[in-house]
Amino acid sequence: MAKKRKADELLRGRFAGGLHPALDRINRSFEVDRRMWREDIEGSIAHAQMLGAKKVLSAAAVRRIVKGLKAVADEFEDGTFEPDPADEDIHMAVERRLIELIGDDGARLHTARSRNDQVATDLRLYLKHLSQRTIARIHDVQEALVRLAQRDGELVLPFYTHLQRAQPTLLGHVLLAYVEMLGQDVTGVTYVGEECPLGSGAGSGTSFPIDRRHTAKALGFKRPSPNSLEAVSSRRDAAMFTAGMAAAATTLSRLGADLVLWTSREFGFARLGDAVTTGSSIMPQKRNPDGAELLRAAATRVTGAMTRLFEIQRALPLGYAKDLQEDKAALFEAEDTLLQMLDVAEAMLGDIAFDGDRMHAAVTAPDGYVLATEVADWLVVRGVPFREAHEVVGRLVSVAEAHHIGIEDLPLEVFQQVHDAFDADVFEVLTPEGALAARKALGGPSPANLRRELRKWAGRLGL
Amino acid sequence: MAKKRKADELLRGRFAGGLHPALDRINRSFEVDRRMWREDIEGSIAHAQMLGAKKVLSAAAVRRIVKGLKAVADEFEDGTFEPDPADEDIHMAVERRLIELIGDDGARLHTARSRNDQVATDLRLYLKHLSQRTIARIHDVQEALVRLAQRDGELVLPFYTHLQRAQPTLLGHVLLAYVEMLGQDVTGVTYVGEECPLGSGAGSGTSFPIDRRHTAKALGFKRPSPNSLEAVSSRRDAAMFTAGMAAAATTLSRLGADLVLWTSREFGFARLGDAVTTGSSIMPQKRNPDGAELLRAAATRVTGAMTRLFEIQRALPLGYAKDLQEDKAALFEAEDTLLQMLDVAEAMLGDIAFDGDRMHAAVTAPDGYVLATEVADWLVVRGVPFREAHEVVGRLVSVAEAHHIGIEDLPLEVFQQVHDAFDADVFEVLTPEGALAARKALGGPSPANLRRELRKWAGRLGL
Amino acid sequence: MAKKRKADELLRGRFAGGLHPALDRINRSFEVDRRMWREDIEGSIAHAQMLGAKKVLSAAAVRRIVKGLKAVADEFEDGTFEPDPADEDIHMAVERRLIELIGDDGARLHTARSRNDQVATDLRLYLKHLSQRTIARIHDVQEALVRLAQRDGELVLPFYTHLQRAQPTLLGHVLLAYVEMLGQDVTGVTYVGEECPLGSGAGSGTSFPIDRRHTAKALGFKRPSPNSLEAVSSRRDAAMFTAGMAAAATTLSRLGADLVLWTSREFGFARLGDAVTTGSSIMPQKRNPDGAELLRAAATRVTGAMTRLFEIQRALPLGYAKDLQEDKAALFEAEDTLLQMLDVAEAMLGDIAFDGDRMHAAVTAPDGYVLATEVADWLVVRGVPFREAHEVVGRLVSVAEAHHIGIEDLPLEVFQQVHDAFDADVFEVLTPEGALAARKALGGPSPANLRRELRKWAGRLGL
Amino acid sequence: MAKKRKADELLRGRFAGGLHPALDRINRSFEVDRRMWREDIEGSIAHAQMLGAKKVLSAAAVRRIVKGLKAVADEFEDGTFEPDPADEDIHMAVERRLIELIGDDGARLHTARSRNDQVATDLRLYLKHLSQRTIARIHDVQEALVRLAQRDGELVLPFYTHLQRAQPTLLGHVLLAYVEMLGQDVTGVTYVGEECPLGSGAGSGTSFPIDRRHTAKALGFKRPSPNSLEAVSSRRDAAMFTAGMAAAATTLSRLGADLVLWTSREFGFARLGDAVTTGSSIMPQKRNPDGAELLRAAATRVTGAMTRLFEIQRALPLGYAKDLQEDKAALFEAEDTLLQMLDVAEAMLGDIAFDGDRMHAAVTAPDGYVLATEVADWLVVRGVPFREAHEVVGRLVSVAEAHHIGIEDLPLEVFQQVHDAFDADVFEVLTPEGALAARKALGGPSPANLRRELRKWAGRLGL
Repeated sequence: MAKKRKADELLRGRFAGGLHPALDRINRSFEVDRRMWREDIEGSIAHAQMLGAKKVLSAAAVRRIVKGLKAVADEFEDGTFEPDPADEDIHMAVERRLIELIGDDGARLHTARSRNDQVATDLRLYLKHLSQRTIARIHDVQEALVRLAQRDGELVLPFYTHLQRAQPTLLGHVLLAYVEMLGQDVTGVTYVGEECPLGSGAGSGTSFPIDRRHTAKALGFKRPSPNSLEAVSSRRDAAMFTAGMAAAATTLSRLGADLVLWTSREFGFARLGDAVTTGSSIMPQKRNPDGAELLRAAATRVTGAMTRLFEIQRALPLGYAKDLQEDKAALFEAEDTLLQMLDVAEAMLGDIAFDGDRMHAAVTAPDGYVLATEVADWLVVRGVPFREAHEVVGRLVSVAEAHHIGIEDLPLEVFQQVHDAFDADVFEVLTPEGALAARKALGGPSPANLRRELRKWAGRLGL
Repeated sequence: MAKKRKADELLRGRFAGGLHPALDRINRSFEVDRRMWREDIEGSIAHAQMLGAKKVLSAAAVRRIVKGLKAVADEFEDGTFEPDPADEDIHMAVERRLIELIGDDGARLHTARSRNDQVATDLRLYLKHLSQRTIARIHDVQEALVRLAQRDGELVLPFYTHLQRAQPTLLGHVLLAYVEMLGQDVTGVTYVGEECPLGSGAGSGTSFPIDRRHTAKALGFKRPSPNSLEAVSSRRDAAMFTAGMAAAATTLSRLGADLVLWTSREFGFARLGDAVTTGSSIMPQKRNPDGAELLRAAATRVTGAMTRLFEIQRALPLGYAKDLQEDKAALFEAEDTLLQMLDVAEAMLGDIAFDGDRMHAAVTAPDGYVLATEVADWLVVRGVPFREAHEVVGRLVSVAEAHHIGIEDLPLEVFQQVHDAFDADVFEVLTPEGALAARKALGGPSPANLRRELRKWAGRLGL
Repeated sequence: MAKKRKADELLRGRFAGGLHPALDRINRSFEVDRRMWREDIEGSIAHAQMLGAKKVLSAAAVRRIVKGLKAVADEFEDGTFEPDPADEDIHMAVERRLIELIGDDGARLHTARSRNDQVATDLRLYLKHLSQRTIARIHDVQEALVRLAQRDGELVLPFYTHLQRAQPTLLGHVLLAYVEMLGQDVTGVTYVGEECPLGSGAGSGTSFPIDRRHTAKALGFKRPSPNSLEAVSSRRDAAMFTAGMAAAATTLSRLGADLVLWTSREFGFARLGDAVTTGSSIMPQKRNPDGAELLRAAATRVTGAMTRLFEIQRALPLGYAKDLQEDKAALFEAEDTLLQMLDVAEAMLGDIAFDGDRMHAAVTAPDGYVLATEVADWLVVRGVPFREAHEVVGRLVSVAEAHHIGIEDLPLEVFQQVHDAFDADVFEVLTPEGALAARKALGGPSPANLRRELRKWAGRLGL
Repeated sequence: MAKKRKADELLRGRFAGGLHPALDRINRSFEVDRRMWREDIEGSIAHAQMLGAKKVLSAAAVRRIVKGLKAVADEFEDGTFEPDPADEDIHMAVERRLIELIGDDGARLHTARSRNDQVATDLRLYLKHLSQRTIARIHDVQEALVRLAQRDGELVLPFYTHLQRAQPTLLGHVLLAYVEMLGQDVTGVTYVGEECPLGSGAGSGTSFPIDRRHTAKALGFKRPSPNSLEAVSSRRDAAMFTAGMAAAATTLSRLGADLVLWTSREFGFARLGDAVTTGSSIMPQKRNPDGAELLRAAATRVTGAMTRLFEIQRALPLGYAKDLQEDKAALFEAEDTLLQMLDVAEAMLGDIAFDGDRMHAAVTAPDGYVLATEVADWLVVRGVPFREAHEVVGRLVSVAEAHHIGIEDLPLEVFQQVHDAFDADVFEVLTPEGALAARKALGGPSPANLRRELRKWAGRLGL
């Protein structure tokens, strides 16, 4: 057997002539799936070693195959791998190169295997590795948030609902909300690989005496997949993992939205460093939070990739279909986008200054009425039903609004006119600091809670 | 306090006049979220009892509130609840009715609570219940599949790749592939509720001395959510749960696609019963698998609902925003669609007959060449490298195709002309039954494997 | 023939027993498509009259059919139509009722027609009517915007890029930007109906001597569709029309986003009236722009409906498939959402007050530097290359920032230190009014342009 | 001014230090938008010439600028353009290179222009060019379809509904259905460019005395855009154009679905040539229609790109935001996918053989009953109400089914038992050829209609 066989000849022996260029272009996926070279070779080594253990291949052949595969891996690692124009995908490229390097024994590697189970295995291995990388990067962003909260967490600012100032909160409480959300996102991108497809063949198993538990274990899966047809037909794992990535991207998009608001002149709560700010081609004064805007928008790429991964499987009969090849372009687009978003978020959080004065001013602005709830709660403690208290304070706000002053600026008599339960003690809760100190129920933004939560996260992240 | 207060007055005391009808229509969600009445009342009872335990409300008030809430629940249960046109949503409807029933104490229920934490809690409770219902229905479909596989599982049919006949398989292997996929889908719709948002207030906690562990435990959550802002801002759980529903819907859509093919005259593998077949308005002979087609198509509704749940959160600053109200319409659309799909799948699987003769004929048709892989493997066992064996058999197929016969119809001499390793033993693997018996590696479609897998699933499903 | 035949018997004569309830539920679309009753009856009348003209039906039969159909229409119009539980869809419901009313001649209506061409025709007629209604409502919103611009259009506020203050603009210019966008959106929802499917039968035409030009003309189409298979297989028109609706919804979502910002305390540019503002269940001071937030979020429903209309057609072989029944739920969801959004937008724009002082203050705030571009342009006019001018002004901004003052507050010497082309004339462009007056190139926000554009739109909208 | 200024310095003069690498990566779009070099230079030439005509720039400067821009264009054309790592996007790259080539005058080009109006203009110019290229490729696919229909159009095959054989049709009728659909798709991707954004500046116009009608005309637009804010804020054109591309991709996906069915052994209607068929890594006999499967699946990429283009604009306040930069990645993904799909479709249609015998056998198979409608229509012509005729024939089918024969094989007595209007003439319509010849109503699949439609399309496409 000649050493210099083209990868497409491995598949097209029976066909007259080559593939039409248009077909070749849409069919060829090497440029997309080459990033799975590590997983492809890892899977092939496990497969060959199992074939050796089961005496399907000789020990000598397995030695040569493994050595050859490691040589191919080295070529990818150091950038010297030379793709052949005929390499249809990463799987055929590796096998073609292996045969070039070691000859006939290379042509034995595909024994008891099909590209269908091979690619399904590679993909799940890739998800495992991607999971680890993604989680590590999420932790970096969580760390950046925690460090900011350690530094500036006790700054007081309004908490917003409907983008209207609602109640006082602490900056650290806001930052830790993102830390919690990212913590949940870690769950969504955790993928340990339950079932190993290798050994499912084209989808109908194999008659070789293979040991699927051997390969499953060698590749770090819990067990072999129990049904060969399911194993080659399903891209469920990739779809659900991408949903997890979409959730993380959504969290980052919300952080981006907050950063855009905070760095506007109108809010003025934060200023991004020069290194994470961009200028304008025409307006020399501009400091644009482009990165934060791209966080907002890029999440829709990940969500779009998720949708594609579900849609390409929809209405597809079982068995392998080429439609499934669309999986990787979608997955990798989600990967590239999310990892880039994590980089950008970490960079921006690492170079941001907060303006505590502007934040505090927003809380104490007389027209904000962010302490109205405190007054209602004060009445409730004194026995007034909540719904009545809510109404009473609504009337106080109306009076204050009419005079363009804060509730706290109203004289006691006005309080007492709207409800006779009021006395001078009410003014004690009418400071942001007082209100916040009182919000010590679990989960609330009291300074004490913040400090405890900061310790929790510092511990978890090993800071 | 008057008994007959409208729900909107609970919110709009300070405003002049009512809400504009257009705003009212888009704002009012009662018709959508009324299906959460059970969860809303369950959450309110837990809240009231906790307030009692913490002496925020008197024991007597709590008794009256709980009794009143149960009375409201009874009204919903027996269909006598009368919505008021002013009921903005299920939460205000229940509270309005409670106040009507028990007066002032009803107005105390909302103490130390906001609609923001209330709705977040209700939604997670709803997901828990929906999870249980969905899993039960998936089990029903799995059972229908297993029963079919028990009945007809050893029928032989082609396994397809690219919708081309590839290799022999067993009908039971195909049916169990769906059972496995649905088993994975169960994982995706399993929701136990980790963190309870109740007590997060509008998003900035509360100053009342509440006990959030008490309510979390009473409602079956593992713990209270640790950050009040996260708790009210995030619909992550609903989005990820809907992704799990989309995965299950995708599985069913594939089953629908297989059913459409199998019941076509061209395949002719199956015939659906009259009760699950529809006719034509114009063609009297038609037996249309409408249900299977709707399985194919309806999955895109669930996927669409999932996308919406991610998109409404994208680029939204933290804090509650009304955008989040869009969550329930999307979630409920996914719920209704998926549960209906499960019903349809179970019904169709319960009334289907397979045509074993047509299936077998498709495997043994001389132009199918579904045993070609067996010949290649036969050579490999005799020391021929797989890639060479693949080529050799490709040549045999070409010869057979030219004569319009099967490989098994070629004389031995032809085999030996293309490779001298052939001898008469090769004909032994050239039967579907022989090929299938040999596919006994774990996960393959050998009859022995099928029987073992059927026992496994019968045990799991308690059949 | 009995008068009281059930609609499902019209289809299921050959089948044993009724349809399984689960199939029946997913298959039955009457509750969804009943809103097409007008189009269904209109199409049937045209069909019957054509059959009469071609002597396929007798003149007497046609008279009775038309009279009967008008009676059915009256029942729908006045709400007395009684659906039968067996009515599968609007088409069978109308035909069933017609047969009840007029007997055997009713059973002749479906001659030379199939539900496939019938529903395709109804749908396109519906799009035509929906197009007219949508355009009328868009015009209403445009009118509301123009009236606001007429009232307050010359208020000065910052134009933003990246949510950073960029340059001065006029409120009227912003409002008219929305008017222009909605004007383009009108194009996207304009649907006149080119080709009439009626007469395509199930998809393979008919052997009756029908006159398709007659029905096409009677129903207001330009011509009959030229290929019966295309006619029944395609939902392209509905998909593209929904894309047009999605574009309009996107425009409104952006208006919603601007309203949310403008009504925040931080911006403070606008205050919505009480009738279009909602309160909080817990915070008595809140004035929440719920309607604007729902405009933001609801657009994703329309976009989702659009995606579904494309996806249900994807990968579907030609010929009618039940998958296509999913079209109407998606279309109607888009319709309901968009029309509701238009109502909400009109209501909010009809009850909004702008705060010209807050807007002007945002333009003149010393830290806004919204006039920096004017200085650069001033230099360019004096021969400085733009890129150099841009740099020069960047340096001026840096100096001013360091002193927390505006550029206009810098002494002339500072100007001259950074570039010797400066003289005292530069201060003339350093007012918002001066800058705006100069932006008189076509499309710019000069007051003169605004007045001309207002006249243009007042004319177009007939104000 | 130094010749070798980096593009990022054109923007960042005021900032300390460079951009953070993570921000730089997400912000830099050169690799994506470089494909707009032609449009960028075309727009810049028109802008410079207008500035010259208006005496804003000297004639000499304009000459040098235009000459320099043409030199840059030559570099792109012949592949010698050397990007600088600091080139943020195609616009800055061209301007940077221009300044390198011609010095200070290059720095004058950006006078009275911003990247915001520049990119909006480039994008619309790009859409115009893309429209032309796409339409030309659609015409090629239409031509391939028409040529096939000319060759094999009169082959008879079943028309399907619900993938059940329904009625006879002609292959040419099916192929021309796709031609019609693609003809409608041409409408969706027709883009002539109504309004030219150039001269809108950053979004607030310019104070330079520019002539926007001049540039609009020079660039082939109908008129300048009337509102500078709308001009820079909207990506509506790109979104709607992508919807048009999604519709075309959907058409091709359906063709792919038909090809997958037709080339299956079960249908056996067509055989793809070797050059457009792929093999299996393991099954030597396989002839896989990968291209057709990818047509099915790839359409979801285009639909996904469309969704992204709508979603990135949703809820975005007016004014330029960096979120809009996501537009081009989405548009170009749609472009690449659709154009590749068109190539693949043309290639497959150019190398396909149909099996008229298999098709005809599917029509005449006794269990297909594709002529049942003819019998019903035969009765209607003789005065039987259609609904009654439908029932009668349903009964005939039941009898024939029970005997496993076709309707045409039933003796006349059986016909007459179910309805006394039958006589021997009924057998005349019971041949596919007879049925097809009768379907001569406009749009139906009679051979005469087919020939007329083929002449129509041959004329339109200039064949």
